[in-house]
Amino acid sequence: MNRQIEILDTTLRDGAQARGISFSTEDKLNVAASLDMLGVSYVEFGNPSAGERELEGFRRVRHHTFAQSRIAAFGATRRKDTPVEEDAGVKALEAAGADTVVLFGKSWDLHVDHVLGTTKEENLSMIADTVAHFVARGCRVIYDAEHYFDGRKSDPAYAMETLRAAVRAGAYCVTLCDTNGGSMPEEIYEATKEAVECLPVRIGIHCHDDCGLAVAGTMEAVRAGATMVQGTLLGFGERCGNAKLTTLLPNLQLKLGYDCIPAGNMPMLTTIARQVAEIANISIPSYSPYIGSNAFTHKAGMHADGVLKLSRSFEHVSPEDVGNMRRILTSEMSGRSALYYKIHRIAPELERDSPEMQRIIEKLRETEQNGYTYEAAEASFELMVRRETGRLPNFFDLIFYKTIGERPYSSNMSSVAVVKLRVGDREAVNAAEGEGPVHALDTALRKTLDEFYPRLAESYLCDFKVRVLNPEAATAAKVRVLMTSTDGEATWSTVGVSPDILEASWTALSESVQYKLIRDAKV
Amino acid sequence: MNRQIEILDTTLRDGAQARGISFSTEDKLNVAASLDMLGVSYVEFGNPSAGERELEGFRRVRHHTFAQSRIAAFGATRRKDTPVEEDAGVKALEAAGADTVVLFGKSWDLHVDHVLGTTKEENLSMIADTVAHFVARGCRVIYDAEHYFDGRKSDPAYAMETLRAAVRAGAYCVTLCDTNGGSMPEEIYEATKEAVECLPVRIGIHCHDDCGLAVAGTMEAVRAGATMVQGTLLGFGERCGNAKLTTLLPNLQLKLGYDCIPAGNMPMLTTIARQVAEIANISIPSYSPYIGSNAFTHKAGMHADGVLKLSRSFEHVSPEDVGNMRRILTSEMSGRSALYYKIHRIAPELERDSPEMQRIIEKLRETEQNGYTYEAAEASFELMVRRETGRLPNFFDLIFYKTIGERPYSSNMSSVAVVKLRVGDREAVNAAEGEGPVHALDTALRKTLDEFYPRLAESYLCDFKVRVLNPEAATAAKVRVLMTSTDGEATWSTVGVSPDILEASWTALSESVQYKLIRDAKV
Repeated sequence: MNRQIEILDTTLRDGAQARGISFSTEDKLNVAASLDMLGVSYVEFGNPSAGERELEGFRRVRHHTFAQSRIAAFGATRRKDTPVEEDAGVKALEAAGADTVVLFGKSWDLHVDHVLGTTKEENLSMIADTVAHFVARGCRVIYDAEHYFDGRKSDPAYAMETLRAAVRAGAYCVTLCDTNGGSMPEEIYEATKEAVECLPVRIGIHCHDDCGLAVAGTMEAVRAGATMVQGTLLGFGERCGNAKLTTLLPNLQLKLGYDCIPAGNMPMLTTIARQVAEIANISIPSYSPYIGSNAFTHKAGMHADGVLKLSRSFEHVSPEDVGNMRRILTSEMSGRSALYYKIHRIAPELERDSPEMQRIIEKLRETEQNGYTYEAAEASFELMVRRETGRLPNFFDLIFYKTIGERPYSSNMSSVAVVKLRVGDREAVNAAEGEGPVHALDTALRKTLDEFYPRLAESYLCDFKVRVLNPEAATAAKVRVLMTSTDGEATWSTVGVSPDILEASWTALSESVQYKLIRDAKV
Repeated sequence: MNRQIEILDTTLRDGAQARGISFSTEDKLNVAASLDMLGVSYVEFGNPSAGERELEGFRRVRHHTFAQSRIAAFGATRRKDTPVEEDAGVKALEAAGADTVVLFGKSWDLHVDHVLGTTKEENLSMIADTVAHFVARGCRVIYDAEHYFDGRKSDPAYAMETLRAAVRAGAYCVTLCDTNGGSMPEEIYEATKEAVECLPVRIGIHCHDDCGLAVAGTMEAVRAGATMVQGTLLGFGERCGNAKLTTLLPNLQLKLGYDCIPAGNMPMLTTIARQVAEIANISIPSYSPYIGSNAFTHKAGMHADGVLKLSRSFEHVSPEDVGNMRRILTSEMSGRSALYYKIHRIAPELERDSPEMQRIIEKLRETEQNGYTYEAAEASFELMVRRETGRLPNFFDLIFYKTIGERPYSSNMSSVAVVKLRVGDREAVNAAEGEGPVHALDTALRKTLDEFYPRLAESYLCDFKVRVLNPEAATAAKVRVLMTSTDGEATWSTVGVSPDILEASWTALSESVQYKLIRDAKV
């Protein structure tokens, strides 16, 4: 029995269909890097037919090297009555230049008749021609059979014919898709078993969660012999979402002994899930299996000693195995080693039991309780450690800032900011206009520092994100601002938290500048 | 084969163990009334041993008449070496006075040895004595076998003995509990089948979602012959939660033909779920199967056109069957038919080919190119259509706003805003402080409108998101602000786009207010 499962993550394609999710090209490259670090076999990067921005993404991703993941492009089989070479979608897929192509086509006679409006024969040719076209170009082709389970119920022989057409044309894998999410796990088991028995290629599974059964259906398919699993890391996708990989990977690998990602990578699962959530600008529900903050939280009243002594009786897996933490009395217990390691890289002389180390951990706990998160803001974490260990030069102090915004505008810019700083024994004040108060503050800060630190001009902000931490407080809620900066060589992220978006932005801005100054001092 | 399934909802007991959930007695009575209206067989109302407030709840619930649900009290089997009549927990259960009693006990030898610290024989007596005690008092007794699946793996004969002890003592139902949530559906199937074959009573199932498989495991148990399903309506509970009844009920009843609740009640599912969510003070995730706002939402262009043409081919059940709605997301990408359908609901007299219709579609394309997205901001879409078709009363005009932000603060708030509006032929100006300029603007806007539209006070913002659209422009990038508001009854979202976060926020804020005014005019 084959226990090696290929994982295809479609966060950037099917996941991007979820309401409220959208990725910039920068976001997509970051998600791909995270998924590669986790070790999935394929990152489905986008649908080149969806427009110029998708193609731009493929052009950029080509310059990146991935250690473990192949980049896949997604698209349809050719249109009816169109030679494959002339099909616009096929051309867009070619232009994407990915070495793996995921082609979707119809397996349900109802859709062939009423959605495509063509004959069953032409549909088979559409599948065969398109698969063969990309196979001839040296691509690895994964054929996604849309609505396969519905098709099989309606006309089982024809549904199987569509798969055979893909196989004969050279497909590497044929994926059975439960596109509507309405199939029961036992139907998925039966259909997958049949496909595994009839077809000499890898069989994949692609489930949606409309019945809350995407994970269960995927596992039944694997039990029936499927060896490719498609899903999205955090489960988001159209409607109710896709099969959630953060649940499937530990279920399959830790509980059932399949090989999905390199074994040593599983303890990164929680961290990588949080990175991707941060990029997607969503929060991970606390009750999420394995990765949620409550997944290993034990209720008050239970003897902590008891749980620690007899943890297998209260936990179905160890939180450490998925990089999560047990929360009972001393929540920092499980995370300590990782933390020591990180702090040690910044301050190598600190002993594990030194008071400084304890103070840093105390500080970390305190700021995290105030809404900070350093998982996506390593630069702020480094600055915090440096601050606590006397490793942060005092580059500048804020004396004050003031911002003014208005509408209608009295000039061509809508905001102005005044920033006054102390640098060494000198004071400097400057004003700047901006498109909005954050822009004005950023410009005024850089203008004021320019004469002291001219190399700052090399760096600029390339992204910012705002997250409401306690939405019930409405516009008075605490917000977390995450800013990403670059100087062309490195990219770093900083974080600020405050009920005032300007104050939170100021913290993130001034830390971004400090990090650049630290970098220049080091290099 | 018995297709009649009893449903036990434990929202008020196991659900109340979830982090962040707490119910007042009033809340509990309201939840019980909602569950009764839905038609579950049992409402597990609480654990009388947990304190005086729980007992007070039971005293009050006794005065209510429920049409369809029995009220159940939950508690442990007697303590070791204690006569059942003298056991404090048993006395508390008696005091609750419920006619149905759910007793939990140990089935796992490991827990008998290490948690109870007693003999296997005494544990069997504890179960038998306590069940018999309540049976003798005329109660219906449901025996919950804690950690049953773990117990069965460790010592199958003993695990079965614990069930037999309950059966011999007169239990009405024996429930197999996957307390740690770690069991795989096929193990649950096997164990349930065995219990169904060996025991002459009703077999129940109680699953937790630590592997994302609580729904699947419950369904496997039902397939094996279980005829009582325990869960919580919205799935919340300890750690990752309990089996989610809003998913299980339609799966079992609509898709597999079991009888769980009166057939005519299923279309109330979404409404009742929202009531309970409101009482529990949580939001229902948009991606929730059946009841989520996205469960029947269609986005991609081809798809949405297809849905209208052939809905059964894209939906596994009809949204009406569970009281939900089909939503076609508004995006230029979503295809013309979908768009016409949506516009038509707002402006029914518009013809497909009318110039107004064309103008609206043109306007939509234009605003989307400018970074607007109406997919998550239906209220702004409705306002746009109303504006284009002369359906938007001129509630107010902005004359100006001005905001001032500073650090250090000169008062206890960091920002102040001045807003001047024209309402009809009057002008009104007001200032407000806030934690940040957006809060100050929101407060000043509402303060200024209050004398004209007092019902605005019912509504408030409950979430906002900020997204950078062209990150390469750094802090001068265009930002999209998405705000979600509620007045307790409805929830709506609005959008604003500008390089100035204040201007984008202003747009979203003022549209939120306008939408509330439209709603009040319609209602």
